[in-house]
Amino acid sequence: MQVVPPALDRLIENLSRLPGIGRKTATRLALNILRRPAAQAIELAASLTALHSAIQLCSCCFTFSESDPCAICADPKRNGEIVCVVEQPGDLMAVEKTGSYRGHYHILHGVLSPLDGIGPEEIKVRELLARVASGAVREVLIATSSTVPGEATASYLIDRLQGAPILLTRLACGIPMGMDIKYADKHTLAKAIEGRATAR
Amino acid sequence: MQVVPPALDRLIENLSRLPGIGRKTATRLALNILRRPAAQAIELAASLTALHSAIQLCSCCFTFSESDPCAICADPKRNGEIVCVVEQPGDLMAVEKTGSYRGHYHILHGVLSPLDGIGPEEIKVRELLARVASGAVREVLIATSSTVPGEATASYLIDRLQGAPILLTRLACGIPMGMDIKYADKHTLAKAIEGRATAR
Repeated sequence: MQVVPPALDRLIENLSRLPGIGRKTATRLALNILRRPAAQAIELAASLTALHSAIQLCSCCFTFSESDPCAICADPKRNGEIVCVVEQPGDLMAVEKTGSYRGHYHILHGVLSPLDGIGPEEIKVRELLARVASGAVREVLIATSSTVPGEATASYLIDRLQGAPILLTRLACGIPMGMDIKYADKHTLAKAIEGRATAR
Repeated sequence: MQVVPPALDRLIENLSRLPGIGRKTATRLALNILRRPAAQAIELAASLTALHSAIQLCSCCFTFSESDPCAICADPKRNGEIVCVVEQPGDLMAVEKTGSYRGHYHILHGVLSPLDGIGPEEIKVRELLARVASGAVREVLIATSSTVPGEATASYLIDRLQGAPILLTRLACGIPMGMDIKYADKHTLAKAIEGRATAR
């Protein structure tokens, strides 16, 4: 017996393809959408339809943008001599939210993961090397995640950029703000000791 | 500075209106949708657009259905003399999944909640009383949730149906299958003792 109407089942099926959303959550979301006015579902649908056609990659830093170059690359008030290398556009948003970075970006669109067949050619490494080779970059700040693939990607980039006449930096690794030292894991604490800075 | 492209921001805004999805999860979902082929976003949009126009309420049991009456109400193999009263269409799906109920349903579309201004007129109580008054129903199984508003709704329905020449039943309340008795909360255990059944 078809208890779930086909139109509802189709939406549940599509929603459950999203990351972190299983069939149960998808069902809950779909039933909630159905209970609300049709206009809200139509608006959500319209924003989905417009998404890919409105957004492209910035040809300079490869972030998602509606213009090319993106607002950051086009901003004369930002310092194009510093390039912050991140894995994904979401990481750029996180860095921007801090308000403490005024340089440009370079989005790799992934991390090196040989087991998944992702080598340097699959992510925007060549484009980064070209930007550095052009001579316009004075500092490359590597801001990949502090995970195994993130660290591996950072090591690879450091290796490739070793000979370039630039300053090569990485995000500091240490105790998160507001954290009680006794709850910090030993690897983080070791990194914090290793990277200790002079107090005044 | 507009770091999030407007088209992406619009989708994030719309996604974060869904229940249990905050701005952070909405951003993660939207970026994931953007990274995948446009065809998947279009298909999700199409299923959202088609939803409300394809689905209506069954005029007999008020579940979501593409046909009227719904597949359950129209099925001659099901026993229309028993009506299971549930809060929402999702509850009907849960009961159907057990495979151990072969009667009809009645969806209230809510529970009594005086503080939110939801009285008997706001949910499908009148329609249930009319179904019972028509004489076609022999048993009403009240299957509202075992929550405070669910119990209040059940009490109200029992009160209104007291005089009707029908069998009035409720779901059994007790220890969940597979649960260790020492971890059962005292209210559930008390209910299980109260509702104990003769063994063989």
